[in-house]
Amino acid sequence: MNEWKHIFKLDPAKEISNEQLDILCTSGTDAIMVGGTDDITYRGVEDLLNRLSHYSVHKILEISRMDAITTGFDDYFIPMVLNSKEKKWMMDMHHQGIKQHMDYIDYVQPVFEGYCILNEEAKVFQYTNSTLPDAEDTLVYAYMAEEVFHLPIFYLEYSGIYGDAELVKQVSHQLNDTLLFYGGGIENAHQAKEMKQYADVIIVGNSIYTDFDKALETVRAVKP
Amino acid sequence: MNEWKHIFKLDPAKEISNEQLDILCTSGTDAIMVGGTDDITYRGVEDLLNRLSHYSVHKILEISRMDAITTGFDDYFIPMVLNSKEKKWMMDMHHQGIKQHMDYIDYVQPVFEGYCILNEEAKVFQYTNSTLPDAEDTLVYAYMAEEVFHLPIFYLEYSGIYGDAELVKQVSHQLNDTLLFYGGGIENAHQAKEMKQYADVIIVGNSIYTDFDKALETVRAVKP
Repeated sequence: MNEWKHIFKLDPAKEISNEQLDILCTSGTDAIMVGGTDDITYRGVEDLLNRLSHYSVHKILEISRMDAITTGFDDYFIPMVLNSKEKKWMMDMHHQGIKQHMDYIDYVQPVFEGYCILNEEAKVFQYTNSTLPDAEDTLVYAYMAEEVFHLPIFYLEYSGIYGDAELVKQVSHQLNDTLLFYGGGIENAHQAKEMKQYADVIIVGNSIYTDFDKALETVRAVKP
Repeated sequence: MNEWKHIFKLDPAKEISNEQLDILCTSGTDAIMVGGTDDITYRGVEDLLNRLSHYSVHKILEISRMDAITTGFDDYFIPMVLNSKEKKWMMDMHHQGIKQHMDYIDYVQPVFEGYCILNEEAKVFQYTNSTLPDAEDTLVYAYMAEEVFHLPIFYLEYSGIYGDAELVKQVSHQLNDTLLFYGGGIENAHQAKEMKQYADVIIVGNSIYTDFDKALETVRAVKP
């Protein structure tokens, strides 16, 4: 994971052709992450995993609902929303999920991500009852992710809009061991390059479904 | 800290004579921790620190209010209440406190404790709006303290009553790297020994103020 630079994030509720899936899986991206906020079903995740199973690309399930967990992924990522107003989204749902799956959790070894959601208009922001941090608050969340919780990943999520590169830069200076993931609004090679200067890993999601060819260029932009 | 076995916890809102303080500080205990829920004031903490300053014993301030922070302690411990219903007691007050003190936090290097409060009648339980976990819930909190948050300390706090030794034993088996602190109702050498079988560190507090001589015996009971 320390070598990763680029991830494509697929939403199981959205349509993607076999041809496009083939291109993404063999694009040179470091991983395909399956996740989304709406309409995540066991069936949708399983269908997508089946279609991905022909490819050797690293496959991650980002767990947003405990009832949509499918075995067969290489990694399970679990967001903890640091800027939610509710403890539920930070750790209580996780507590419940771990309790349910305690018997094989050591086998699965889930990866916990410290999320900071920065787009008030995003569904995930509203769904998790988040509060918008200013730049200083965001830096303190980054500090806590690394120094208090020792999380492997701090994930700046602009979900649908292109973020503030200056803030991403500041956050990157705050972090040492914890990896900085950046997601949100990356639609072309230029944006990919800009955010990759600061983030360890950029995540390209929505633009797969809006402008596939440009989304594809983001791989080569950061992995020359 | 990995070598510690015993801590005396002093409440700055309670009276203690100079003679008793001298006996505690030179008793062989590993540290004196200053902390409490009620009436913690800057003045009270500072007075107690002044009286402790003549002794070489390790001095810890357990921070329960950001306005009662006094410099001069060897360590600053900050409880995060894992079983509170409110995110505030788990991480939001800490976020605010870190933001206020960001300039010298690297110098202070506070130690974050994962608290699990197990006495519904305790003031601290009600004050932090906690919810009573059953044994399985408690084990999952211990798991999260170590495997998710990588906290240095998991603190089972029975606050005023003597706890369930069987549960303390189970929790001790759950933990590897994270230290298990046990506090609550230890009033004599026998109880100290029983809990010390499982906990890395026992904390003796209230009984200092109710039966000083027996409280003192708890040191020798666990540090022969």
